[in-house]
Amino acid sequence: MRAVIMRAPGDVIVTDADRPTISEPTDAVIELAAACICGSDLWPYRGFDQVENRPMGHEYVGTVTEVGDAVSSVKPGDFVVGSFCLSDNTCEICEAGYQSRCVAGGFANGTQAEFVRIPQADGTLVVVPGGRPDDPEVLASLLAASDVLGTGWFGAVAAEAGPGKTVAVVGDGAVGLLAILAAKELGSERIIAMSRHPQRQALAREFGATDIVEERGDEGVTKVKELTGGLGAHSVVEAVGTQQAMEQAIGACRSGGHVGFVGVSHDVTLPGGLLFGKEIHLHGGPAPVRRFLPDLIQRILDREINPGKVFDLRLPLDKAPEGYRAMDERRAIKVLLQP
Amino acid sequence: MRAVIMRAPGDVIVTDADRPTISEPTDAVIELAAACICGSDLWPYRGFDQVENRPMGHEYVGTVTEVGDAVSSVKPGDFVVGSFCLSDNTCEICEAGYQSRCVAGGFANGTQAEFVRIPQADGTLVVVPGGRPDDPEVLASLLAASDVLGTGWFGAVAAEAGPGKTVAVVGDGAVGLLAILAAKELGSERIIAMSRHPQRQALAREFGATDIVEERGDEGVTKVKELTGGLGAHSVVEAVGTQQAMEQAIGACRSGGHVGFVGVSHDVTLPGGLLFGKEIHLHGGPAPVRRFLPDLIQRILDREINPGKVFDLRLPLDKAPEGYRAMDERRAIKVLLQP
Repeated sequence: MRAVIMRAPGDVIVTDADRPTISEPTDAVIELAAACICGSDLWPYRGFDQVENRPMGHEYVGTVTEVGDAVSSVKPGDFVVGSFCLSDNTCEICEAGYQSRCVAGGFANGTQAEFVRIPQADGTLVVVPGGRPDDPEVLASLLAASDVLGTGWFGAVAAEAGPGKTVAVVGDGAVGLLAILAAKELGSERIIAMSRHPQRQALAREFGATDIVEERGDEGVTKVKELTGGLGAHSVVEAVGTQQAMEQAIGACRSGGHVGFVGVSHDVTLPGGLLFGKEIHLHGGPAPVRRFLPDLIQRILDREINPGKVFDLRLPLDKAPEGYRAMDERRAIKVLLQP
Repeated sequence: MRAVIMRAPGDVIVTDADRPTISEPTDAVIELAAACICGSDLWPYRGFDQVENRPMGHEYVGTVTEVGDAVSSVKPGDFVVGSFCLSDNTCEICEAGYQSRCVAGGFANGTQAEFVRIPQADGTLVVVPGGRPDDPEVLASLLAASDVLGTGWFGAVAAEAGPGKTVAVVGDGAVGLLAILAAKELGSERIIAMSRHPQRQALAREFGATDIVEERGDEGVTKVKELTGGLGAHSVVEAVGTQQAMEQAIGACRSGGHVGFVGVSHDVTLPGGLLFGKEIHLHGGPAPVRRFLPDLIQRILDREINPGKVFDLRLPLDKAPEGYRAMDERRAIKVLLQP
């Protein structure tokens, strides 16, 4: 089968690889209907994370072709979405809603391919009612649910977005944009998108942003405070992962408010005195997408949300290297790959 | 009147000072029935904070002697407890329960004296039903409510202590001990006190601790995990303010759990990757004692709780320097000063 490999930073190829098979009784093998490139794939691409001949991809939607003996909730022929975090969905941590930190957990890997093996299939995959959708937009939205939508959603939940709340979102990548969609769906009153890209601003508004702040850093914080009676937003989602973005998020949040951070932290250090003095709530990490997946799938099938709109470039799997370049250069928000 | 002044680190005197008067229409003057030395007073005493001729003390209980023209909720003769944080208790931040970050806020100061001026009297002071209590134990407990009980309580609330929860408390000073009492009152199932002092362990057990862990740092974390099926506590209160204590608190908390930190952060830096990877909730800062004060006063008057037990040394105000020495050398948990 064809699969995407990152040989080194900036060096992505599509190559032949062995088709995966069942190796644990809890595994399933899926034939991918679509995969995509994640913002987090850019960390190794840009050399911020070590990488050497790594099979790429952790977002996926597709048809089950084979299951291990212990798998009971999915069967060959089922059309499924799975979380990028593997989980048994039965341990105490999973039951508390943190499937991203399951005691038997891990991460899906190698989904930028024709087939992928998913461990912990029972606790990770969710069957899509009605099977594979005919509408490619619905298919793209289901793919988004696997990580980018679920991550934006978790950011908004961690920031306690909801009725009566003003929510600010730091980061206008796909996760930030979908955090806006989530904040809107959760009933937030006002949503401030922090973005300086016209195309992304337009999508932010379409997803529910009521205000746009183009300034960054301290100036961005000042602007958010001006929009919120000098107090700051009730809820702030951080969807970048850098020191500047985290400081901007904490700065833009009012005391007693909530910062949800879902950008993968890189070289971020937070002074205890800042956290003590601001007295915000801080919560984040890899999104427990499995917690939200049944609800998100239903909202997509009901055409209530259309998160697949973040895919503004669709390429055949063989063109994956061009997809990485487009995202790296911010020519594309998010790239869908068709095996 | 007599008042305690810290001239420099380690140098505390009791001296004559002007009796305070009303300077703003929102002020009240209080004749103190009791005051005390706070663990946070040890930061400047030990030279970790700058200090020069500072009037000391921010915990207080006493009788109102005078009020400004704008004060309506307390009057001369009322016996009151106030928060160490000043608040108008009407702004949006106060209404959200964060009176410690009131837009018109500040901190009480100079309560280790015979009289003190309290700004923002209406929003800061709470009248004790029934007036000054005859029982000195009740008086001591009301004094504790002003900060140390309120702070321990906030730590437990921030850590979401409650029914079904295992709560670990890092720090066996008065705040840590009262966080144990709070965790118990809030219905927690199991409470792990981290302490290596026999006397403090005894009080911890009296306040509700079910387990004692004497180990610190990584060993302490390992021990808490052993007691919690390898997962860590649901809730952890940090009541020290050092890097080691904060790391111990985060380490001892399970993923998805809550760390409430109320130790005043000194030279603490938290790696974003640790917070992302552990996926705990983190919340803390100066306690919004005013939020809890009416409830705490009632629990004290009902003899449901006896937080005044943390005062294991009672001295006349003139002996304040000895009180500071006793707390610095950990000979006393907390010192009550009688003007």
